[in-house]
Amino acid sequence: MKNFVSVKDVKDINALVQEALAYKADPYKDINLGTRRRIGMLFLNPSMRTRLSTQVAAQQLGMEAVVFNVGSEGWALEFEEEAIMSGNTVEHVKDAAPIMGKYFDILCIRTFPSLKNRDDDYSELYINQFIKYAGIPVVSLESATLHPLQSLTDIITMTEVLSQSPKPQGKPKVVLTWAPHVKPLPQCVANSFAQWVNAWGQAEFVIAHPEDYELDTQFTQGATITHDQEEALRDADFVYVKNWSTFHDYGKIYCNDPSWMLTNEKLRVSRNAKVMHCLPVRRNVELSDEILDSTNSLVTTQAGNRVWAAQAVLANLLRSK
Amino acid sequence: MKNFVSVKDVKDINALVQEALAYKADPYKDINLGTRRRIGMLFLNPSMRTRLSTQVAAQQLGMEAVVFNVGSEGWALEFEEEAIMSGNTVEHVKDAAPIMGKYFDILCIRTFPSLKNRDDDYSELYINQFIKYAGIPVVSLESATLHPLQSLTDIITMTEVLSQSPKPQGKPKVVLTWAPHVKPLPQCVANSFAQWVNAWGQAEFVIAHPEDYELDTQFTQGATITHDQEEALRDADFVYVKNWSTFHDYGKIYCNDPSWMLTNEKLRVSRNAKVMHCLPVRRNVELSDEILDSTNSLVTTQAGNRVWAAQAVLANLLRSK
Amino acid sequence: MKNFVSVKDVKDINALVQEALAYKADPYKDINLGTRRRIGMLFLNPSMRTRLSTQVAAQQLGMEAVVFNVGSEGWALEFEEEAIMSGNTVEHVKDAAPIMGKYFDILCIRTFPSLKNRDDDYSELYINQFIKYAGIPVVSLESATLHPLQSLTDIITMTEVLSQSPKPQGKPKVVLTWAPHVKPLPQCVANSFAQWVNAWGQAEFVIAHPEDYELDTQFTQGATITHDQEEALRDADFVYVKNWSTFHDYGKIYCNDPSWMLTNEKLRVSRNAKVMHCLPVRRNVELSDEILDSTNSLVTTQAGNRVWAAQAVLANLLRSK
Repeated sequence: MKNFVSVKDVKDINALVQEALAYKADPYKDINLGTRRRIGMLFLNPSMRTRLSTQVAAQQLGMEAVVFNVGSEGWALEFEEEAIMSGNTVEHVKDAAPIMGKYFDILCIRTFPSLKNRDDDYSELYINQFIKYAGIPVVSLESATLHPLQSLTDIITMTEVLSQSPKPQGKPKVVLTWAPHVKPLPQCVANSFAQWVNAWGQAEFVIAHPEDYELDTQFTQGATITHDQEEALRDADFVYVKNWSTFHDYGKIYCNDPSWMLTNEKLRVSRNAKVMHCLPVRRNVELSDEILDSTNSLVTTQAGNRVWAAQAVLANLLRSK
Repeated sequence: MKNFVSVKDVKDINALVQEALAYKADPYKDINLGTRRRIGMLFLNPSMRTRLSTQVAAQQLGMEAVVFNVGSEGWALEFEEEAIMSGNTVEHVKDAAPIMGKYFDILCIRTFPSLKNRDDDYSELYINQFIKYAGIPVVSLESATLHPLQSLTDIITMTEVLSQSPKPQGKPKVVLTWAPHVKPLPQCVANSFAQWVNAWGQAEFVIAHPEDYELDTQFTQGATITHDQEEALRDADFVYVKNWSTFHDYGKIYCNDPSWMLTNEKLRVSRNAKVMHCLPVRRNVELSDEILDSTNSLVTTQAGNRVWAAQAVLANLLRSK
Repeated sequence: MKNFVSVKDVKDINALVQEALAYKADPYKDINLGTRRRIGMLFLNPSMRTRLSTQVAAQQLGMEAVVFNVGSEGWALEFEEEAIMSGNTVEHVKDAAPIMGKYFDILCIRTFPSLKNRDDDYSELYINQFIKYAGIPVVSLESATLHPLQSLTDIITMTEVLSQSPKPQGKPKVVLTWAPHVKPLPQCVANSFAQWVNAWGQAEFVIAHPEDYELDTQFTQGATITHDQEEALRDADFVYVKNWSTFHDYGKIYCNDPSWMLTNEKLRVSRNAKVMHCLPVRRNVELSDEILDSTNSLVTTQAGNRVWAAQAVLANLLRSK
């Protein structure tokens, strides 16, 4: 593995999942792997779970993790080539990134989409410029269009649940269902989950959303897409709940129909499905309290598994150097 | 000890004080106690001494300390049960706290009162919700109504001074005296000092304040309360200076009489009393320069002792697991 | 070395440079030197390179580094003696600094000039008050008028380049040239570079700037000063590019002539000079892309060398205790 910014960086998803589960069983088994190695964690946008789980993962590999909040603690960065920097940005990524490459062994970056200009966001300019100029492995802590550490966590969590359950006949049915929200959110988690589940290939995969919420087909191709949530939930084994804003007329909220909120009532047609969400979740808007507080909810397990996903990725990058 | 949020969590105050003083004598004697243990430090409000001293204490126990500024670095949290989260809060403590429990071994939290709604503040909803949902020991880095690490430090400091002085006849006289300030402050430090000195039981304890500044009797019960500062200071061995806003007509400044500022002149009736303050202190408003710069002042000693208080508490929690 | 706030704290510049280069060759050779020692890093102003490089340096000496952003994370500090603190400042440096001295072994501070009152800025009140009251060694991470870690880095970088080049006849020619910028900047880097190059004494040193941009002669004395950039650049071996605001009519931008931007065209009269800048740099305002992206640019090397400068300074202070 050279970088970790999408599923395309992973040769064997199941092997990576097993490495993560091995860390869960024995967190400190590679405590010497990261000795005298450092990760720099650059936050162009805020983060809680991703930040904390990656710090924990690094510590468990014996690495130092240095956190830097760009903007609040530092500089506004410029990403455009040949910019005449007489405006608000004070440093070009061409100058900042190579320095990160001198201070750190691995660079982790969090950046969000603008949700204003789709072409810009989907070009992933920010993270790609860091990859181009840093000269060290780059790990996405969520980018403009993808959230690969979250998706790896999700595959880990489903693998774990499946290994503890009686083997189902055929592939498990995994449903990604859109949920209402109060503001326009990125498509990252949905894109990334779709990309990973499709690449994993071990599920019957259905995506349900209202009209106008189609995702980019480069990520969804291979999934069954429907506007009928009930039909999607029928016989589901895993239901992943997530809001996203529109992709085509970019970054908008069209319908925000509260009837898309997932409830126990709706889950009745499923095979007692496990419910997933990347958090943070707006309770009683995206998901009802009754589901989140039930034993069907995997959300805390998922968040806990973030550590093992990050640890497996960091370990892979350390071993690849 | 299961948590550390008030004096009620402590079985034997003097034993805890002695543990702290043992760390002061030999800071690294338990450097292996915290190996592979982590504290998470969540700041819903800013902090300097408490944050730094707790980080230092954790390091001296061999623990990793991870700092997270909620709000500036992360999310606005929801604390109300059954909230429909369509407003400004983006994550419920029910979802956030269990994750802290997965990432850390001990959770330290700083939160302030609103000073607007007394019932809400005095219910200690925030810290109690973290205790309810985190599943790991919780340490208060100051809460809405109490500041137990400060109070433990204060008892440590008085114990230390008493052990170095000729034994006084009878109990030492400890005076908590209100001081002027420029804005309404929480009652935390005063409440907590009163609660600890009363539980300690080794002092003649007097609280002096202007009319209308009565504290909650659940904390002050056992102390002599007076509005006559001079009478209170007579024969005092320790004078603790602190401003607080009104408790009954909640969070207000009534009288802000500058004559309540402590000066050397006023201290003449004391037994050459040592002067204490939790810091930060508004010089020449709460306390005169002449006192703070004199050898009677214990404020730097107190602030230094914060490390040993935190270290004794963390060590206790580690040993109780 | 007792503190590190200017070149005056350094007995032997070349020896310090050689120590830094020894760390560059073997970063972990003194990994046990800082065991159980801690640096506190206080940022009254933001920082990226200085902060990260000092954290890295501390880690490589086995020290713990604790970062604290004053203001955003903590308190507004008061620096005036005898202040009646009824305004916005909440803690006096007389109270805050000794506590840093209790928590840490070395205190690193970043503070900027106001650019409004020259006497105040040039008195270096902030850092001097910390030195006066902290009771432990103080390291400047840039102060109101100087940036000694940057200047040490610059001497290290020139020494390194010279050792890899054929020995020039006579002293190398070092030029500090003013550059345009979009806002008024401190004189720190320019002052400090001038102070160090003069103290180093191993260069023919020329400073070029437009009229009205004279620096304080206490730092420039010994250098040749000219308003003719082309003349200055002739036969130059090193060209240090930096903007600064006016010193005499303090903190202003007079001429902001874009023709002072350094380009390859202008460099033709030099001896294929290496180009230096402390970063962050406004591309195509201070320096053209063509220079920054060329092999003549040392800016990334300089930024990387910040680690070794900080490590040599911290090691010296640890050894002096």
